[in-house]
Amino acid sequence: MDSHKPEVPVQDGDGMVVARLDVDRLRRCGAPEAVFAQGKTPEETVRISEALAEKQGFALITRAGPEAMRLIDARWPGCRRAPHAGAALVGMPPEPVRDGRWAAVIAAGTSDLPVAEEAVLTLAALGREGRIIADVGVAGLQRLLDRLEEIRAASVVIAVAGMEGALPSVVAGLIASPVVAVPTSVGYGAHLGGITALLGMLGSCAPGISVVNIDNGFGAAMTAARIMNV
Amino acid sequence: MDSHKPEVPVQDGDGMVVARLDVDRLRRCGAPEAVFAQGKTPEETVRISEALAEKQGFALITRAGPEAMRLIDARWPGCRRAPHAGAALVGMPPEPVRDGRWAAVIAAGTSDLPVAEEAVLTLAALGREGRIIADVGVAGLQRLLDRLEEIRAASVVIAVAGMEGALPSVVAGLIASPVVAVPTSVGYGAHLGGITALLGMLGSCAPGISVVNIDNGFGAAMTAARIMNV
Amino acid sequence: MDSHKPEVPVQDGDGMVVARLDVDRLRRCGAPEAVFAQGKTPEETVRISEALAEKQGFALITRAGPEAMRLIDARWPGCRRAPHAGAALVGMPPEPVRDGRWAAVIAAGTSDLPVAEEAVLTLAALGREGRIIADVGVAGLQRLLDRLEEIRAASVVIAVAGMEGALPSVVAGLIASPVVAVPTSVGYGAHLGGITALLGMLGSCAPGISVVNIDNGFGAAMTAARIMNV
Amino acid sequence: MDSHKPEVPVQDGDGMVVARLDVDRLRRCGAPEAVFAQGKTPEETVRISEALAEKQGFALITRAGPEAMRLIDARWPGCRRAPHAGAALVGMPPEPVRDGRWAAVIAAGTSDLPVAEEAVLTLAALGREGRIIADVGVAGLQRLLDRLEEIRAASVVIAVAGMEGALPSVVAGLIASPVVAVPTSVGYGAHLGGITALLGMLGSCAPGISVVNIDNGFGAAMTAARIMNV
Amino acid sequence: MDSHKPEVPVQDGDGMVVARLDVDRLRRCGAPEAVFAQGKTPEETVRISEALAEKQGFALITRAGPEAMRLIDARWPGCRRAPHAGAALVGMPPEPVRDGRWAAVIAAGTSDLPVAEEAVLTLAALGREGRIIADVGVAGLQRLLDRLEEIRAASVVIAVAGMEGALPSVVAGLIASPVVAVPTSVGYGAHLGGITALLGMLGSCAPGISVVNIDNGFGAAMTAARIMNV
Amino acid sequence: MDSHKPEVPVQDGDGMVVARLDVDRLRRCGAPEAVFAQGKTPEETVRISEALAEKQGFALITRAGPEAMRLIDARWPGCRRAPHAGAALVGMPPEPVRDGRWAAVIAAGTSDLPVAEEAVLTLAALGREGRIIADVGVAGLQRLLDRLEEIRAASVVIAVAGMEGALPSVVAGLIASPVVAVPTSVGYGAHLGGITALLGMLGSCAPGISVVNIDNGFGAAMTAARIMNV
Amino acid sequence: MDSHKPEVPVQDGDGMVVARLDVDRLRRCGAPEAVFAQGKTPEETVRISEALAEKQGFALITRAGPEAMRLIDARWPGCRRAPHAGAALVGMPPEPVRDGRWAAVIAAGTSDLPVAEEAVLTLAALGREGRIIADVGVAGLQRLLDRLEEIRAASVVIAVAGMEGALPSVVAGLIASPVVAVPTSVGYGAHLGGITALLGMLGSCAPGISVVNIDNGFGAAMTAARIMNV
Amino acid sequence: MDSHKPEVPVQDGDGMVVARLDVDRLRRCGAPEAVFAQGKTPEETVRISEALAEKQGFALITRAGPEAMRLIDARWPGCRRAPHAGAALVGMPPEPVRDGRWAAVIAAGTSDLPVAEEAVLTLAALGREGRIIADVGVAGLQRLLDRLEEIRAASVVIAVAGMEGALPSVVAGLIASPVVAVPTSVGYGAHLGGITALLGMLGSCAPGISVVNIDNGFGAAMTAARIMNV
Repeated sequence: MDSHKPEVPVQDGDGMVVARLDVDRLRRCGAPEAVFAQGKTPEETVRISEALAEKQGFALITRAGPEAMRLIDARWPGCRRAPHAGAALVGMPPEPVRDGRWAAVIAAGTSDLPVAEEAVLTLAALGREGRIIADVGVAGLQRLLDRLEEIRAASVVIAVAGMEGALPSVVAGLIASPVVAVPTSVGYGAHLGGITALLGMLGSCAPGISVVNIDNGFGAAMTAARIMNV
Repeated sequence: MDSHKPEVPVQDGDGMVVARLDVDRLRRCGAPEAVFAQGKTPEETVRISEALAEKQGFALITRAGPEAMRLIDARWPGCRRAPHAGAALVGMPPEPVRDGRWAAVIAAGTSDLPVAEEAVLTLAALGREGRIIADVGVAGLQRLLDRLEEIRAASVVIAVAGMEGALPSVVAGLIASPVVAVPTSVGYGAHLGGITALLGMLGSCAPGISVVNIDNGFGAAMTAARIMNV
Repeated sequence: MDSHKPEVPVQDGDGMVVARLDVDRLRRCGAPEAVFAQGKTPEETVRISEALAEKQGFALITRAGPEAMRLIDARWPGCRRAPHAGAALVGMPPEPVRDGRWAAVIAAGTSDLPVAEEAVLTLAALGREGRIIADVGVAGLQRLLDRLEEIRAASVVIAVAGMEGALPSVVAGLIASPVVAVPTSVGYGAHLGGITALLGMLGSCAPGISVVNIDNGFGAAMTAARIMNV
Repeated sequence: MDSHKPEVPVQDGDGMVVARLDVDRLRRCGAPEAVFAQGKTPEETVRISEALAEKQGFALITRAGPEAMRLIDARWPGCRRAPHAGAALVGMPPEPVRDGRWAAVIAAGTSDLPVAEEAVLTLAALGREGRIIADVGVAGLQRLLDRLEEIRAASVVIAVAGMEGALPSVVAGLIASPVVAVPTSVGYGAHLGGITALLGMLGSCAPGISVVNIDNGFGAAMTAARIMNV
Repeated sequence: MDSHKPEVPVQDGDGMVVARLDVDRLRRCGAPEAVFAQGKTPEETVRISEALAEKQGFALITRAGPEAMRLIDARWPGCRRAPHAGAALVGMPPEPVRDGRWAAVIAAGTSDLPVAEEAVLTLAALGREGRIIADVGVAGLQRLLDRLEEIRAASVVIAVAGMEGALPSVVAGLIASPVVAVPTSVGYGAHLGGITALLGMLGSCAPGISVVNIDNGFGAAMTAARIMNV
Repeated sequence: MDSHKPEVPVQDGDGMVVARLDVDRLRRCGAPEAVFAQGKTPEETVRISEALAEKQGFALITRAGPEAMRLIDARWPGCRRAPHAGAALVGMPPEPVRDGRWAAVIAAGTSDLPVAEEAVLTLAALGREGRIIADVGVAGLQRLLDRLEEIRAASVVIAVAGMEGALPSVVAGLIASPVVAVPTSVGYGAHLGGITALLGMLGSCAPGISVVNIDNGFGAAMTAARIMNV
Repeated sequence: MDSHKPEVPVQDGDGMVVARLDVDRLRRCGAPEAVFAQGKTPEETVRISEALAEKQGFALITRAGPEAMRLIDARWPGCRRAPHAGAALVGMPPEPVRDGRWAAVIAAGTSDLPVAEEAVLTLAALGREGRIIADVGVAGLQRLLDRLEEIRAASVVIAVAGMEGALPSVVAGLIASPVVAVPTSVGYGAHLGGITALLGMLGSCAPGISVVNIDNGFGAAMTAARIMNV
Repeated sequence: MDSHKPEVPVQDGDGMVVARLDVDRLRRCGAPEAVFAQGKTPEETVRISEALAEKQGFALITRAGPEAMRLIDARWPGCRRAPHAGAALVGMPPEPVRDGRWAAVIAAGTSDLPVAEEAVLTLAALGREGRIIADVGVAGLQRLLDRLEEIRAASVVIAVAGMEGALPSVVAGLIASPVVAVPTSVGYGAHLGGITALLGMLGSCAPGISVVNIDNGFGAAMTAARIMNV
């Protein structure tokens, strides 16, 4: 196996190593480490983000609660944020890649927007642009068809939908770009926390769709960025 | 409770009563008894169908295997049949109702046709007309849009789809008639024998859809006929 | 595809389009847009409802929490409400359709009443009348049989039940009208949030039943109204 | 723990002990060992049954295939059989208990009869009488109500039903005896091999129902016999 | 169907009938109505209990929260209570049946005791005695074997267990009485809210077990009382 | 919506339109129609393939059984085949795209090879090259690390794995290209027909993975080709 | 990473590498490669086994069908076999380890014996002895208690059980050795192909149990051998 | 069955026996009783722990909430604690076993550390040493390979991982010691509360892995200690 830079160990108050920041990931995978705030205290989130921003120049924070978002605002005033998604991009983000490629991030309903915003902010952390096209669910088909030319112009489409998750099926049958489908946990009744949309997207009869985990706007953006880097 | 006609008991070779034909159902529910052939021998299927046809003038047989279909052909030559569905309508079917109402039976893919045919034959047994519109799945949206005026003209739509089951969502957003959705067990991978399509149809974001069991063309027709009788 | 009226875009504070009110839906599908309050702030709920009521003359609001209901009361004093269901009908609702048709909304137990009320209010928003017949679950069969003549007189039956969900099976075997079954998330133990009732309704041995999603009184009413419009 | 009689070891051709017949069970639990033929060759089934009949005077055999049933007929001509259930009672069955108690074994549909027959034959092996009341499913409620007095006269009711499994709910609300519910794997679509009926029976809103495993007529009879022995 | 006494309608503040107390149930099923407090306000719980106690002489209340239990204490000081289960028996309970029969209520672990207590209080409301035998789970088998003679003396056994739910299997193989198994939602990891114990009890290799719903001490007692009334 | 070429209707013997070949798909989506042979008779498979090959110049056939493969061999001798996958590419396939891009198709175990072969043949039908790297499952990690440089050189990686499906996680952490993960139904015990691998791939802690349906080598190739066309 | 011996590539008829025998596994993991015959033709099974036996001196074959077992018998007459399990150990197996350690392989019922035999044969391939103790399921507890001293003497216990899977719970509470639990797919009704036993074993209230996959006697033996090598 | 010491009964305020401390377990199973604090009040937790510590010299407490941990700190100042896991070891723990054996407790991510800490503290209560190796998940493979020699030196490995749970698969293919896998409920989307990791670990293609319940660090340590005692 090839040589590698050492990881950055993180210790807790008792000196036990609790994390090793994988700062080599950017070189190896083309993607930086991020801070997944869920399950961390707001203070931990800020401290780890500071450490990471120092190493990488910037840090992407996802799944932060309201209190953590307040701390982040205080620490990095004016940073780029996706407040409904609990996400922020602090420090000096990477230069945008100038190759004309961009991702259309289409969302079926208003409730799917936080996931779409997480995707767009993650794309920014990867030097890529994402443009949200909101409220184009298939129950009002004309809204989607009206935006079709715009969607066709994108290099890759991230399609975010809850409920029955039919949006990727319909759009993938109309365009030629890869479609990264993101099921969301939006719905009621037998939506099973997003499993219904997930199964529907996997079972789609349209070609060219691949799927990431429920509500995983971050992962969809990671995939879309790798695609744009091909 | 109101008075009622006696049932017709059916005995096996040892004289045990194994069934009671509910011949009062037509008066009570507006729908005749049918013969569900699955789990019966071909000979039993024919014998029970004969008994029912004698009482009702006709008999609808569903889920018959190839051997039973051969016996049915021999016993009732030229009877109306839905061979892929293993269904037949023998004897003298009821007069068609002349009120201008009919059901559009739309099917997403070729593999959904047997279920659609079962629905059409069941409608015939109820004096109702069903017209199949085949292969209008959402992955090739134009095929559906081309037939939209025809679909809008129907009194009720039976929408048959497997895989992700998105067809009812799309069509219910485009028309004003009730949509009876039938998930089918068609698909591969995580289609879960039709559960994926079932969940998707239940979770639809479009209004006016109700759902019957997987592959249940018979039940969809029963519901559609009741709707047309309103 | 046919021409269509433009949607009404809704922007958030930053000017991003987060929703497009599908005001053409009434013409296309015979049903107006509604405001699904879950996941919205009380203030957003009121603001969107105002915008919709301005366009349509009225607005149906569903799944509103207690605080949103208080704001609605303050904004539209005396509006028609289904308080247990968190639903309200504000503005000037459409004229009732005068064709003698109405829906019986039967509920198995007291806990199923909020869902039944949501259905009745939704019917009102569609110009249709729904009459609740409460507490007719099958464990005390006589209570159902006592009301049978009344139920038979309805054009369509909405049957709401949790637990094992047997009510639609029993009633559909006794009448000739279409039965729209609504499973509820009422129960304990292995009721699985309503999945048990949902599966039971789908698997019913009685003809003429179709099913909507768990707790979906709104969807049942949408279906019932389309049926009454046939 | 109390002393006990030795078990009867059974060896295969290589002398390895593969089974230990628990002939003490009759004394300890009031129920004899039985031969569960599924997964055994027809010859093994006959040989083990012979060994057991020699020890106990008789042997109950369940879940035997057609070939095993033929061998059993040849070995014990005229033995009591439940052919659809693949069950037989060979040798000299125990004397019937003369205390006036008996079990009503009610079956929702024709397809549920094999499970009902397995229950009746098992009851016979326990010295108890079971009487089948067939085809009283809730979709044709009158058929059940017609037999209600007879059902009320039984000491215990075994209620066998597939599909949505609503029969025990309805009957338990009408009588005072214990109801042992047996879900069957009969149905189509989302019946899930009987899970739908099982969940429905567990979730029943009627009191006095307990449930055994899917298709387990044997277990229901075991429970019913213990109840009659109280 | 036989004649019957009228139900007692209960109205809400707007005069809508929201419940019909099935006071005929005692005559028909041998069991009184009970008040299931879950989903009701504490005040509603007390008011309905008063109405029921007036009709029946007493009322059993189950699944009451702490506040409702306080109101109950204030309204009926000194009433019999199962505080961990949120259950109470108010008014003048029925005379105990004097036939020497009683139920052993065995519980695998300390956490299963609330369910056992609910069963015992329900038995009291039915005029039956239940005796708890606590902490006899199979991981310390000797604790169970020490109590075996006592358990054998009972007319019926209610076996309450969470986790893997093995207690009924072991005990049913050692005694001759019917065993009513109650899975509980006690456990961690893949206990699935009690589904693991439920499946284990249904799949037991021991004869004479039937199963009620998860945590359903009430239902187990209802079944056990019917058994003791045989 | 834009104009479009008419579809090619396919009729059965009775003249009913059972399919509409979507020959416009190539222009619209960059991917041709394919023949999914499962559920078709061998003769139907050949006939439809002939029709498609006539229109498109070639036809990709997937999921054909042994008999259909024999007919295909007889009709198109020497055609390119993936025999373990039941797939064939008949007629004159499209010219390979000459842009230096190719897909690495890595397979965890020998049993995953049919799915990998289906992917490679589908890529060929799209003018793209796929190279199989076999038997690099993570239980013998060195086999994967030995091939890492080769895998890194690919434009996109299709990772095929059954059982726990860990291969995409490990490989995505080591490279920068997009990884399209294909769970397979290979395994025993609780592999749940591939659901275990599917869930594992969706839940991966490594970035840049998206997932297609179980055993869906065809869909993975469709996605990979769209990616290479970016 | 440490250096390693090259793998042994296996090619199919067209020269494609379809497998790489991981012959280094013995040195690295203390366990040899085995031949999993399921999904291979009988001829492939024999050929791969020959190749492996040549490298390792012997080969363990598991999950072979009847035809493969016949070929194995013909090729290696008198080899050690577990015929019910479809397993064989051919060539010259390794020398037994002489450290006094052995594994008790206890099986709840007769139907669990094939899995137990697979475990014993796998242990032999690892130089370890396993002794089967059959038919000690918990429904006849005395049979287990009678063998307790023998079980206590083992270094490790492999406990094989289907249905509710309670055997490991009971035995782990009585002994101090590690218990490797193997759920089997034996049962009827809601055993879910072994999932019920699997969940029960995972949820056990007894300490010292760990679990392998359903029917995985091979994996249990692998684990037990590693334990005995500690 | 062998003789045994009497259990220590614990009574509640009303004198009912609610628990029987199984103080014989240490002799019988080599493991002491522990206090599972979940579902107990903080005061109960302390009182039971005092009773147990008096009998055994020490007590292990698991799954204690913050308030219980504060009481424990106040009652036993300076006791050994695993605060993130809510676990403590109070009193005089047993002497460490001096045989050179120890367990490596490897954790995939930072979020898995509480489970790892519970395992280490449980090992201490059993006189065994566990050493945590943190943040060695497979998405950054080098972090694991760097620690491989250290892991190989352990007698047994406890591998803790959430999400897709691939860590045990990879590590078991690289070492010869037994691997006890612990799935955790860490993840998002379709991780299903740890079921995804659980299934992945059970389905692993690597030999020598056995699995305990989700988040069950306690159980993993119990198993590891039994293994080290072989």
